[in-house]
Amino acid sequence: MTHSSASRQPVALGLVGLGTIARNQHLPSLAAVPAFRLAAIASRNATLDTLPGYPDIDALLAAEPEVTAVSLCTPPQGRFEQAASAIGAGRHVMLEKPPGASVSEVEALAAMARAKGVTLFATWHSRAAAAVEEARRLLANRKISRVEITWKEDVRHWHPGQDWIWQPGGLGVFDPGINALSVVTRILPSALHPVSAVLDVPENRQAPIAARLSMVTADGAPVEAEFDWRQTGPQTWDIRVESDGPEILLRMGGAELHVAGEKIIAAADEEYRRLYARFAELIATGASEVDLSPLQLVADAFLLAERRTVAPFHDPALPG
Amino acid sequence: MTHSSASRQPVALGLVGLGTIARNQHLPSLAAVPAFRLAAIASRNATLDTLPGYPDIDALLAAEPEVTAVSLCTPPQGRFEQAASAIGAGRHVMLEKPPGASVSEVEALAAMARAKGVTLFATWHSRAAAAVEEARRLLANRKISRVEITWKEDVRHWHPGQDWIWQPGGLGVFDPGINALSVVTRILPSALHPVSAVLDVPENRQAPIAARLSMVTADGAPVEAEFDWRQTGPQTWDIRVESDGPEILLRMGGAELHVAGEKIIAAADEEYRRLYARFAELIATGASEVDLSPLQLVADAFLLAERRTVAPFHDPALPG
Repeated sequence: MTHSSASRQPVALGLVGLGTIARNQHLPSLAAVPAFRLAAIASRNATLDTLPGYPDIDALLAAEPEVTAVSLCTPPQGRFEQAASAIGAGRHVMLEKPPGASVSEVEALAAMARAKGVTLFATWHSRAAAAVEEARRLLANRKISRVEITWKEDVRHWHPGQDWIWQPGGLGVFDPGINALSVVTRILPSALHPVSAVLDVPENRQAPIAARLSMVTADGAPVEAEFDWRQTGPQTWDIRVESDGPEILLRMGGAELHVAGEKIIAAADEEYRRLYARFAELIATGASEVDLSPLQLVADAFLLAERRTVAPFHDPALPG
Repeated sequence: MTHSSASRQPVALGLVGLGTIARNQHLPSLAAVPAFRLAAIASRNATLDTLPGYPDIDALLAAEPEVTAVSLCTPPQGRFEQAASAIGAGRHVMLEKPPGASVSEVEALAAMARAKGVTLFATWHSRAAAAVEEARRLLANRKISRVEITWKEDVRHWHPGQDWIWQPGGLGVFDPGINALSVVTRILPSALHPVSAVLDVPENRQAPIAARLSMVTADGAPVEAEFDWRQTGPQTWDIRVESDGPEILLRMGGAELHVAGEKIIAAADEEYRRLYARFAELIATGASEVDLSPLQLVADAFLLAERRTVAPFHDPALPG
């Protein structure tokens, strides 16, 4: 008897949450990855005409026993209960970033998944950007001297009406900022930890609209990050790495690689296709992938940060 | 050739930091633990007549090569550099609680200690309280149904003039609160993670003066903690555990154990003697002990907490 990939049936998958990221990324990527067959949706407010829809994940799990994998793209604050339900029902689980509202709760999910023998995949979509693995390869044996992260975007453009990002557990500007942290923790050859942080919190909000985070690698190299959600005009998602080799510059959130000033890679966005391909691979091999170092850095930043109150933020897409 | 404990010379130890906790706890405990010989002090401001004194740990390490172990009881904000210096110089390191200003930085120290082959001991003094291990034993096979932590003390009495506790990284009311978390993470038979938190932060301070933290065990039992630094009159450090067995009540920070209402243990404070005896044991066996779960819970609480501004706090022991 032989095993061939051609004979493998696609995995029936349930998508939980049907917001912006689900519609813009998860649905088209699932359509392009033959390892999965989108079989059902769970969403409080939305449905798709072509698929069975359920008001919540528990209804989906109960009604769709052949759905063996679920992908959660709901806000992080309620994701633990959903993931715990799915794992408890013996389903494989893929988590949108950030994987939860705390490091401890995702560690708890990882322990549950181990006990149940199912796959847990805590995704970091920016790690799947086109140039990230090549940057990692180029830096693998380098002595890093300085890293600069500049992550500046317009929250009104990218997150209209997303009130949960301002709520406790919503991370504020670290919601995009954690993408940068997921990349640096992947490309740098040693671990890093925060030294100091300043969070600028609008006086009418719980979460920061801007932040400075000073970190250091295990080898003592400074890693300086500037996150700002008030950037109009050109948007910036850059990571610059100085070392004993040529300067490495990742731009566009990891889609572009410049080496010593020359553009080496500039590729189309296939992050979510890669995530789903990786999820299929993890399921097939019975493995999990849960690296919480980006969320740990954010939790640590919140722990040791100085907070400053700044001007109130009003979302034009929300009433009030 | 035989090895006997009688023939073992005491380990020469350097004490770094000579504040309240050093004078009240570390000095008398070191005098009572024969495994150590206090050989030198590093303190910016203070000296002891009877011992060599140095302005900082680097001066101590350079001048005292026979000091093979150091104990750090400085504030957590600057402790990483001190510990990294000591480990880099091949010395064993014991850390006062909290072990650092972030989870990541203590993980970095643990990696350094492994690479250097020296002992790192991240202490939690309340875990060494007299009744903690017996509470753990009684709960080992119990199904927990509810835990209540009540930790209320007068900051003016216990922390006069300690400005660092209010600074970023100083933890505020979680400085005592983490003692409770170090005990519950030791006595409960399963891990726990935070669900929600409310931090009450004085309008003139960075750190909370009071906090509510709702957690849950891996088995779904609620663990409710109330921390308050504004408690005058009777002081409370209680942990109550309801399960399918008799009620367990730890009082006085773990020094007293009540089982089903009956006082079973009420012992004198020997926490720091036990810590130093454990440090000697770890050094002798070439092991480290670094459990960061209490600090992780606090970092996670800061990450997902709602913050409320409360009345300003003025320390009568400080000018202004």
